[in-house]
Amino acid sequence: MNILFIMYDQLRFDYLSCAGHPHLHTPNFDRVAERGVRFTNAYVQSPICGASRMSFYTGRYVSSHGAQWNGFPLRVGEVTLGDHLRALGMDCWLLGKTHMKADAKGMERLGLAPDSMIGARQADCGFDAWARDDGLWGSGPDGDYDQKRSPYNEYLKARGYDGDNPWADYANAGVSDGEIASGWMFMNADKPANIREEDSETPWLTSETIRFVDQAKGPWCAHVSFIKPHWPYIVPAPYHDMYGHNQIQPPLRHPVELDDPHPVLGAYHDARVAQAFQRDEVRDKVIPAYMGLIKQCDDQLGRLLDHLEATGQMDDTMIVLTSDHGDYLGDHWLGEKDFFHEASVKIPMIICDPRTSADATRGTTCDALVEGIDLAATFVEAAGGAVPDHIIEGRSLMPWLRGEAPKDWRQFVISEYDYSVTPRAEALGVQPRDARMMMVFDGRWKLIHFEGGFRPMLFDLETDPHEFADLGDDPAYQAQVDRLYDCLGQWGRRMAQRVTMSDDDVRAARGRSMRRGILPFLADGSEVPEELTVKYRGPARQVHAKTPMAKEESHDV
Amino acid sequence: MNILFIMYDQLRFDYLSCAGHPHLHTPNFDRVAERGVRFTNAYVQSPICGASRMSFYTGRYVSSHGAQWNGFPLRVGEVTLGDHLRALGMDCWLLGKTHMKADAKGMERLGLAPDSMIGARQADCGFDAWARDDGLWGSGPDGDYDQKRSPYNEYLKARGYDGDNPWADYANAGVSDGEIASGWMFMNADKPANIREEDSETPWLTSETIRFVDQAKGPWCAHVSFIKPHWPYIVPAPYHDMYGHNQIQPPLRHPVELDDPHPVLGAYHDARVAQAFQRDEVRDKVIPAYMGLIKQCDDQLGRLLDHLEATGQMDDTMIVLTSDHGDYLGDHWLGEKDFFHEASVKIPMIICDPRTSADATRGTTCDALVEGIDLAATFVEAAGGAVPDHIIEGRSLMPWLRGEAPKDWRQFVISEYDYSVTPRAEALGVQPRDARMMMVFDGRWKLIHFEGGFRPMLFDLETDPHEFADLGDDPAYQAQVDRLYDCLGQWGRRMAQRVTMSDDDVRAARGRSMRRGILPFLADGSEVPEELTVKYRGPARQVHAKTPMAKEESHDV
Repeated sequence: MNILFIMYDQLRFDYLSCAGHPHLHTPNFDRVAERGVRFTNAYVQSPICGASRMSFYTGRYVSSHGAQWNGFPLRVGEVTLGDHLRALGMDCWLLGKTHMKADAKGMERLGLAPDSMIGARQADCGFDAWARDDGLWGSGPDGDYDQKRSPYNEYLKARGYDGDNPWADYANAGVSDGEIASGWMFMNADKPANIREEDSETPWLTSETIRFVDQAKGPWCAHVSFIKPHWPYIVPAPYHDMYGHNQIQPPLRHPVELDDPHPVLGAYHDARVAQAFQRDEVRDKVIPAYMGLIKQCDDQLGRLLDHLEATGQMDDTMIVLTSDHGDYLGDHWLGEKDFFHEASVKIPMIICDPRTSADATRGTTCDALVEGIDLAATFVEAAGGAVPDHIIEGRSLMPWLRGEAPKDWRQFVISEYDYSVTPRAEALGVQPRDARMMMVFDGRWKLIHFEGGFRPMLFDLETDPHEFADLGDDPAYQAQVDRLYDCLGQWGRRMAQRVTMSDDDVRAARGRSMRRGILPFLADGSEVPEELTVKYRGPARQVHAKTPMAKEESHDV
Repeated sequence: MNILFIMYDQLRFDYLSCAGHPHLHTPNFDRVAERGVRFTNAYVQSPICGASRMSFYTGRYVSSHGAQWNGFPLRVGEVTLGDHLRALGMDCWLLGKTHMKADAKGMERLGLAPDSMIGARQADCGFDAWARDDGLWGSGPDGDYDQKRSPYNEYLKARGYDGDNPWADYANAGVSDGEIASGWMFMNADKPANIREEDSETPWLTSETIRFVDQAKGPWCAHVSFIKPHWPYIVPAPYHDMYGHNQIQPPLRHPVELDDPHPVLGAYHDARVAQAFQRDEVRDKVIPAYMGLIKQCDDQLGRLLDHLEATGQMDDTMIVLTSDHGDYLGDHWLGEKDFFHEASVKIPMIICDPRTSADATRGTTCDALVEGIDLAATFVEAAGGAVPDHIIEGRSLMPWLRGEAPKDWRQFVISEYDYSVTPRAEALGVQPRDARMMMVFDGRWKLIHFEGGFRPMLFDLETDPHEFADLGDDPAYQAQVDRLYDCLGQWGRRMAQRVTMSDDDVRAARGRSMRRGILPFLADGSEVPEELTVKYRGPARQVHAKTPMAKEESHDV
């Protein structure tokens, strides 16, 4: 079986028709959901591209892998999905975005050449790159934002688009009345992108994916990682005017949220992106473009699914559709992601396992508490391996796909956010290491802990599903706060770094040293019954226990 | 300045005359204490050789480096003291024991050759090995306990001691009436070792140290790591009969400790080593030998100090004396270490800084809460560096040596123990990952947390300095338990893995992307005052903020 691990960037959990969006029809996402399981309570380990993706690609919490924000290098030697799958005989390919930054200092310290295969995999987060393109090719007075080569820009140039950076000048610029309009300005979001639709980013990566699957020898895992519907919010015709104002969801916000908010949330309210999305004209321009980008993703997904069907590959390909985080779009008076309301931290997750073992659950939903790190464990099991749970902290979702309900499933999910690089840290006057927040959510109660001495926030999603009322400073809810802090404390004590010894290694290490001549803790040897001793060349009467006693005592060394 | 980082294995904090031992006179330890500062509240990060040492050598908690027990490999790429000091132009040498096990799988995954310089440093915990000898050369029916070469065994053979393993047959065997007696048997501890005193382990490593310092070009840090007074408890004449029964400290134990003890402590009471040390005749045999081993260490320390004085090296050598953990010796009905009573988790720590900046504190003691991981930070500062506190979790002790008292010093120390490989895990029926315990001690209250569903233990060292009364299940002390769990929770949320980005790196990363063409979150560009915009070749009117605005917004990407 092969694995098609498809990620859309910044796709909200509720902007799919199978997830209940009343106006955005996504028949192809729905088509996968009808053949698989849609997880309705899936959460990312951090609502920001880089940190979230490093968790998807390692199966580990952000505090475990340490790459806490965009551009924070993933420590050299951190074991990735690619390492796990290749060891099981499954190739692991990348098409599109990872937002991975290599640990250049660490690689140099270990003498790893960036152009070696090992070095390249270290730099690409463990993947073999079919086409790596992180999808943000801005350039300005200080040079390029991304120093790597852009296969997509190379494609556009080959297609005749001129200039050094057609990504900026065509794919992400608008056009109206022959005038070029910057795709960066929200007010230009209703203009069509300055590019032929078939040459825009989503069709391009879909074509690359078709090229890949047609030549790939299985078993393979392909991470197909689209930059859209991530900003710049601009989409080519006909998608640019497919949706009108009357199809925009009203903002999920309440004045009470602006009334003496928690200091950190207040700092987010003041961010320029929040200020912009608090304006109805911005939402009216941006959200139809965002919906158009998703509609284009859905059409291209259909094209890919049709190709898999036409080439008979549907029956041996597991298809996974998910996102690295959501998009506030003005909900809670916020834009972007970066905080822990459902619009930001909850993601779509749809898994279609073609095997008969999953027949019982096709077309169903699962409301178990699921985390992005669970996919790495799921893929290892799909590749026929046992999940190395001393390294991968996620849990395989396979039981749910088989219709089982593990009794010992997790009771809460964790997400983290490091805002040390953002203006919020300076505005709040917190040190970089204290500019961190953590969410613990048990399915009803959501606690947000802040380092740096701030009070926690608390939401009750049962009585307040829209998360308007922060109960964090209400003494009446102290018991819930304490209980969720106990959960956070339990999580904080987890064993996350004993990555060189599995539980099986630990069991195998028991009872070894005594039969290798380490014989402490004997008063005079009489503790060892004669029939349990063995003689061997050595000084005096050396007592050597056979396995039973050896197991009992010898591993105190 | 050079650093002589001397570690004795299993040396109790209170078995020195400067620490108050009434019968064991250690004039040379005292001599260093008179010239420096003796830290009276120093604790190891784990009361077991391997895990404790990996914390000393990385400056990180056990849960951070992950090498939780003897023989658990230190993850490849983990940054060590050697990496930090060499970057500051200071060599970092090893003489003696580390108990380091290389991460062979990780090195293979990264293509690191064990015989390369980088590979060798990975295998020797970041040190360059002048003479690595871990000091446990047992061999039995299943072969050798330690597969490496033993410079000490090679020395003995060159000195004419015969057999494959003179370490076992001479240095650690006793002799009486011409009969060879196994050094492993406690009942043989009163016999002299079957070796000339000057050829035993402690004098050998002292001679190696003198050879090293006489040829070394500074600045250097030398980790001189003696295996003694660690068992086998046997010492050559004249040390074997230097101390009599009347000079043995009475056991620090109380019947109440055996009355319905905590299940995990109860399992330790049942260990063979505990059973042995509960017998007076075992203490009467072992403790005089243990004292003799320490007396020999002190004499050899005097020899080394005399040599440094004679060669004028005292004035530019910082001398550090410490241990990796203690030894119960029958206290609390226990033997060995492996638990959190003071006899096990508290260590001697004496630092003599020759510089005038430390003159004010010579001959004083410091009762601040100190951890083994603080030495790595101290050495980095001694080498002229700034402590990389995103990697090293310990704190430099230099302020204390200068007579300062940092107001923000830690409020509690942490120690951890993983007993998953020991018989206790099986006896208690806990899974490997749950066979972990953690101590948090604030100078008065000591909480011991156990994974696996056991209740905590609690001691009040003010009213119960000998730690006889476990208050962990007394409702009257719930507030203290809760408070210490808050400390443990705070520690559990620490930032331990963001090792690729320092706080300075974070600050430098602010405000970069906007001037590299990433311009999100602008409605129409009018938010940017014209005087703040810069024009450059690009599509449409591209708004580029200068640094002030860039700093404000551009790092949301």
